[in-house]
Amino acid sequence: MIKRIEHLGIAVENIQDSIQIYETLLGTNCYKQEVVESEGVRTAFLQVGESKIELLEATNPDSAIAKFLEKNRTGFHHVAFEVDNIDQELERLRGEGFNLIHQSPKDGADNKRIAFLHPKSTVGMLVELCQEKQS
Amino acid sequence: MIKRIEHLGIAVENIQDSIQIYETLLGTNCYKQEVVESEGVRTAFLQVGESKIELLEATNPDSAIAKFLEKNRTGFHHVAFEVDNIDQELERLRGEGFNLIHQSPKDGADNKRIAFLHPKSTVGMLVELCQEKQS
Repeated sequence: MIKRIEHLGIAVENIQDSIQIYETLLGTNCYKQEVVESEGVRTAFLQVGESKIELLEATNPDSAIAKFLEKNRTGFHHVAFEVDNIDQELERLRGEGFNLIHQSPKDGADNKRIAFLHPKSTVGMLVELCQEKQS
Repeated sequence: MIKRIEHLGIAVENIQDSIQIYETLLGTNCYKQEVVESEGVRTAFLQVGESKIELLEATNPDSAIAKFLEKNRTGFHHVAFEVDNIDQELERLRGEGFNLIHQSPKDGADNKRIAFLHPKSTVGMLVELCQEKQS
């Protein structure tokens, strides 16, 4: 089951400048920054209601965010929906014919298991499913 | 004050097909469709937690959505943040140097007063502020 928009991922060239802009826009402070080495990305999080804004800066030129910015402008990158059972949701969506980028969940930022759906099957939106890891 | 992500606006070519896709993806039914004649747009809403997905189809070739789709692919169009006082927030953001598309609020879909910020001042995101109209 999909529970809420967990976060919006926004691809940016300069994360420090972007943090300042979003802190001012949202009237709240960035509460966490995290580098995910495996993805070549630096992330910064701001809370808005039950959701987060996740700013994404590439840390190397081969990362997904660097490649995205070569092809696109800065701005919207993906929407992440929190699910109660990511394995079950992936199975359900595979059965419904959605195009899965990840056939099974992998580790993501912010202590989550994540998997992406291809924009081809979602009218152009890169969609992430995520679930908090059980400790 | 910004309270939550009120909705994500997604520009689509065919709203009926897109409703089916998002109903399946989110596991929930579209609860409302509304045509906003003044904007040349047909909208459809699905609830996700405290937020909504708003699908947007152009009803005429001069509408903002038709022009957006001429230049871009289908997909993310804007994010709307709900505010407690839209006049006050616009004043605050103008003072902070944000580039306002609307200097004062106008009527939008879903019984709201709305105003947009230009993507230039938000690292590439088209941002809507919205507030429920008082009855």
